[in-house]
Amino acid sequence: MTNFFSSSKLLRINNEDGDILRVLRKTEESFTEFGEAYFSIIHMNSIKAWKKHNAMTMNLIVPTGCVGFVFTDGKDFKSVKIGPNNYLRITVPPGVWFGFKGLSSDINLVLNIADMVHSSEEVEKKEKNYFKFDWSSL
Amino acid sequence: MTNFFSSSKLLRINNEDGDILRVLRKTEESFTEFGEAYFSIIHMNSIKAWKKHNAMTMNLIVPTGCVGFVFTDGKDFKSVKIGPNNYLRITVPPGVWFGFKGLSSDINLVLNIADMVHSSEEVEKKEKNYFKFDWSSL
Repeated sequence: MTNFFSSSKLLRINNEDGDILRVLRKTEESFTEFGEAYFSIIHMNSIKAWKKHNAMTMNLIVPTGCVGFVFTDGKDFKSVKIGPNNYLRITVPPGVWFGFKGLSSDINLVLNIADMVHSSEEVEKKEKNYFKFDWSSL
Repeated sequence: MTNFFSSSKLLRINNEDGDILRVLRKTEESFTEFGEAYFSIIHMNSIKAWKKHNAMTMNLIVPTGCVGFVFTDGKDFKSVKIGPNNYLRITVPPGVWFGFKGLSSDINLVLNIADMVHSSEEVEKKEKNYFKFDWSSL
């Protein structure tokens, strides 16, 4: 089974006026190049799937809410739930199919810090039911 | 009066499962170098002030909630409220004193994409009441 992603535990610094949440430093191994950063909101129980980037490496962070990510090569599936209570950065190399589902009634916010500017040229898409994953298991 | 910051209107792409919010692309004028990204949460009516970066350029984005930023040279003050309803990226050059206040009962989240890794060496701090700004005016 392939390693679909790597994960890094991120520091959360407590502050009575509001915590500081680390995201990414250029000195970290997960960082190669900055291309673009963007947010994706995902409503509770909504699913965005499936997509594959053929060139982009993604760094995914969920600062508020909770999001279930599923990765697949079409045969094996691997899922991970991230959010402030499991505050991880997920690094996804090119060539991995993925989808995600909003799991919290709070705003579910995904930040992607990617190594290239988004381009429809390098993205493939499939319908939600193309890969047989039981989204209710998340 | 100094220009304390510049601002860029950001694109929000509607999607029924959750919108996409642009943040920063390397091809934009606001981008020089990627150093570090981190989130600061600011509770409603809490104030974090005053701070000045002597080397860092900040790119500030508020994807959820509403945050009032105040910039000063000790004489003039300039404030701006940003959030999804006024979805701007604020670029702040080094040498500007700033503070910010949480204005929404939703989570107030500030993303800073900075051109250098955070270092206490280049940060100066003053007490909240050091500059006479009426925070209740925000």
